[in-house]
Amino acid sequence: MSFYDQLKFDGSGLIPAIVQEEKTGRVLMMAWMNRASLEKTLQTGKTHFWSRSRQKFWMKGETSGHTQTVKDIAFDCDGDTLLIQVAQLGAACHEGYQSCFFRSVQEDGGSFKITEPQLQSPDQIYGKK
Amino acid sequence: MSFYDQLKFDGSGLIPAIVQEEKTGRVLMMAWMNRASLEKTLQTGKTHFWSRSRQKFWMKGETSGHTQTVKDIAFDCDGDTLLIQVAQLGAACHEGYQSCFFRSVQEDGGSFKITEPQLQSPDQIYGKK
Repeated sequence: MSFYDQLKFDGSGLIPAIVQEEKTGRVLMMAWMNRASLEKTLQTGKTHFWSRSRQKFWMKGETSGHTQTVKDIAFDCDGDTLLIQVAQLGAACHEGYQSCFFRSVQEDGGSFKITEPQLQSPDQIYGKK
Repeated sequence: MSFYDQLKFDGSGLIPAIVQEEKTGRVLMMAWMNRASLEKTLQTGKTHFWSRSRQKFWMKGETSGHTQTVKDIAFDCDGDTLLIQVAQLGAACHEGYQSCFFRSVQEDGGSFKITEPQLQSPDQIYGKK
């Protein structure tokens, strides 16, 4: 049975993809894929997504150079979420952090704190606009 | 500034929550929260979600006993995804696997394989229906 037959894309033809750094187990980001970006990811071994805000196909790292080389693609029991193991080049987050999940809720339950160092500024990654 | 002010719930009032086992780094599942289930999660220290298929508030483990004790709640740069670290009791997946992501794509890109042992059968968890 084909892998694609197991997947359920949502009403917009999208499926969420969790990206995890294989080496460290750090969850780096979550982004959305349509079937074309998943096929491109499988063909090239580099992660490709669909941007809902820009309505655009994109390869992670196409501007920043911070590409992700795919090591494994898993899918969940309901077939509606992907978990992709990668080797990450540079910072995964466009704000210059290793992971997009660089802020955590404080114990008071209301405020939050930054939990990891910023590796680069967005200006360093993308150049001054 | 409040943590809630950083979050963007979608048009249905939901935000996806990735659940990761703190001890092992294994990504266990992804489920959806509305503001009420997030508040309940913060108040009780046990994960609560919103089921889109059943249109129902639920606590993870309410039937199976396989609850999740919250260790950390992080959110991403866009404020539209949560990453929750937990201590997991028993199997996270309703199919009896540690993780819902128990299947991976094979290198041929078409078929898939099961990548971890089934710890319990659904019958053992939920009783025969």
